Amino acid sequence: MAVRALLFDVFGTLVDWRGSLIDHAGTVAGDASADWPGVIDDWRRAYKPATDAVVRERAAGGPWRDLDELQRISLDAVLAARSTDLSDADRAALVQGWRRLRPWPDTAAGLLALRELAITATLSNGHVGLVADLMRFGDLRIDVVLSAQLADSYKPDPAVYLRALELLECEPADAMLVACHAYDLEAADRLGLRTAFVRRPAEWGPGGGDEAPDMIRGLIVVDSLPELADRLR
Amino acid sequence: MAVRALLFDVFGTLVDWRGSLIDHAGTVAGDASADWPGVIDDWRRAYKPATDAVVRERAAGGPWRDLDELQRISLDAVLAARSTDLSDADRAALVQGWRRLRPWPDTAAGLLALRELAITATLSNGHVGLVADLMRFGDLRIDVVLSAQLADSYKPDPAVYLRALELLECEPADAMLVACHAYDLEAADRLGLRTAFVRRPAEWGPGGGDEAPDMIRGLIVVDSLPELADRLR
Repeated sequence: MAVRALLFDVFGTLVDWRGSLIDHAGTVAGDASADWPGVIDDWRRAYKPATDAVVRERAAGGPWRDLDELQRISLDAVLAARSTDLSDADRAALVQGWRRLRPWPDTAAGLLALRELAITATLSNGHVGLVADLMRFGDLRIDVVLSAQLADSYKPDPAVYLRALELLECEPADAMLVACHAYDLEAADRLGLRTAFVRRPAEWGPGGGDEAPDMIRGLIVVDSLPELADRLR
Repeated sequence: MAVRALLFDVFGTLVDWRGSLIDHAGTVAGDASADWPGVIDDWRRAYKPATDAVVRERAAGGPWRDLDELQRISLDAVLAARSTDLSDADRAALVQGWRRLRPWPDTAAGLLALRELAITATLSNGHVGLVADLMRFGDLRIDVVLSAQLADSYKPDPAVYLRALELLECEPADAMLVACHAYDLEAADRLGLRTAFVRRPAEWGPGGGDEAPDMIRGLIVVDSLPELADRLR
């Protein structure tokens, strides 16, 4: 079961975007009257359509755009739809909040245990600078920061996973994607990577995490990163 | 004097390629009769012409090639020039030795002290997979592994430094290159990065390190990474 590299999805898998952003909004924009949990959930739901659109635009010769830019556009749309007023500075501060997301309680120890077994790398839709800030914020040790940015694309575009394999000198079967979202794992599985699903039942608030995908052969399902380390040892 | 990112040259600056490779050669190819210090020094001298040639070839539309490939070609030439016989497997093992270079005694603690002050990133001519293996071999904690590979080029091509700035979202003046080689620092300085020279007097054997470049304004000169952390604090 030895692999050369473990690739980690970040938002949801390593860090609690929802709880962190709701708290962050209360801090930076506490004066504004808003249903912050509702805003944050709408904002997160706008994320995948926004990254998917960039992948389509890229295929048609358009430019790659980073997550800061996409998140700002999505946030503006979410606030407009909810008729929520917010200053430019507060909007910018909310976007920066994606660099200050708290790790789940098991993340730091789990990453340390897993890097005893293989190269650990992020494989995030967040760009390199954002992920670097995020790992530092949570004091998370990871061997390599990889990002969809290095393929000028976004997951689940196969180019993103293939670029990670190329940079880490891995055959697909020598790498494992660790994620809490089915679409990400299914994309990796189609390319021949191994896969591990981490249940994050609090991702969307209590009881709101994704279910494990049921069509992936050999999928490992765990409740935490240390449990994954135990399974791979 | 605060910067967002510290970029570290690796071979020579963080790790002792010469002592490590001489020992490695004695281990993997000890049966072969060879002047290993002479072979290793010739091999290292062939490095920059080889990477410079790739930069020129790239400008003419040629492919980028990684350091494993270049090192193997250089090693074959060095051994041929010295009429030294060595098996294919031993040659391959020597090339792999570049992933098993010992850090200098101050490197691990210095990197930890410096990451309290800024994002730490490698900026090596070694490709990402090689540098990842090397950092793990020496148990060196670094926030981000960056490589000339991400610009499909080699230092001192300006594209390499500019790509690092782009990925770390840095203006030139917000980044500092830390290196023990004048050519590397001079290239960074021309682009407006800050610079720090670390003396590594044992790089080429006793008394064989580079001298500090004398034409760089604001250059910091230190004898170790912890000393650099003290200077930047």
